[in-house]
Amino acid sequence: MGKVILHATMSLDGFIAGPNDEMDWVFRYGGPDEIVHEAINTTGSVVLGKRTFESTVRQNQLPYGGTVKVPQFVVTHEARDAVTIGGLTFTFVTEGVECAVEMAKTAAGDKNVSLLGASIDQQCLRIGLADEILIHLAPILLGDGIRLFDHLGIEPIELERTKMVASTGITSIRFRVVT
Amino acid sequence: MGKVILHATMSLDGFIAGPNDEMDWVFRYGGPDEIVHEAINTTGSVVLGKRTFESTVRQNQLPYGGTVKVPQFVVTHEARDAVTIGGLTFTFVTEGVECAVEMAKTAAGDKNVSLLGASIDQQCLRIGLADEILIHLAPILLGDGIRLFDHLGIEPIELERTKMVASTGITSIRFRVVT
Repeated sequence: MGKVILHATMSLDGFIAGPNDEMDWVFRYGGPDEIVHEAINTTGSVVLGKRTFESTVRQNQLPYGGTVKVPQFVVTHEARDAVTIGGLTFTFVTEGVECAVEMAKTAAGDKNVSLLGASIDQQCLRIGLADEILIHLAPILLGDGIRLFDHLGIEPIELERTKMVASTGITSIRFRVVT
Repeated sequence: MGKVILHATMSLDGFIAGPNDEMDWVFRYGGPDEIVHEAINTTGSVVLGKRTFESTVRQNQLPYGGTVKVPQFVVTHEARDAVTIGGLTFTFVTEGVECAVEMAKTAAGDKNVSLLGASIDQQCLRIGLADEILIHLAPILLGDGIRLFDHLGIEPIELERTKMVASTGITSIRFRVVT
């Protein structure tokens, strides 16, 4: 069984997007590093929130640049039929994030489930669904935007750094959630 | 002339202290690394806010464990005489953070000025006084507390990673503020 991995690029001040969902800064600091390649090769499915899905479609920036052709599960309140965009099939799940993660695990098989977007990430941390956290730390202070770890309202969660790569301007760090 | 360096230990979710100024987690992940030693050896003075000063005294945790015997400048609204605690002399500056940093630069000579505490750090970033940012990233999600980079209300500030050390549980990263 694969892992459930919170995967995000974050500014040093903790944002994953600007105030209007701007993501352009993410690509400024060099090409994908070894940890990105590893993530791409081991991702078997993706769970994302409705806002992330809509921003993704609007900005024409599919998860992993559309290169990882795996099932995508969108957590939403609005029931709708699955859509296929750029070869990726998005299934809309109205039964909540736990159900979406369960579906994603089944779809991923031995591979990992990637969690994308602040809302999904925070929900999964709160209910203990995330096994790992994979952060690409960008050398920028954005000043404002969408925070990856907004006040979580949780007891502290201990992590263990398991890998680190700093081959581009980005510092990529992989953590295990210590349960 | 030395540099003005924002120096902090931060949880992965961006906090430098818990909701009640708790700092115990900071010391959990191994002894000081090479970047800490370098900072200790090159610090010529310290600027801190009143809240940081009071928390420091209350928790009996002097800046750098009291081992760096350099002048300390406390930015405050309340005029009071300098005090010496544990061999460190704290001078209270009521003319604002710019004045305190100027006094600290003079006191530091060729060495660096360390900025300690979220309020001072944010003020110095907003007015462009910080030359470098030195972060010790702790492997923990605190969930709540005092954020190092609270919504700064600034235009994005580009950084450049100049050094990184991961010899303990902490990941220490040094950035230059790109002006």
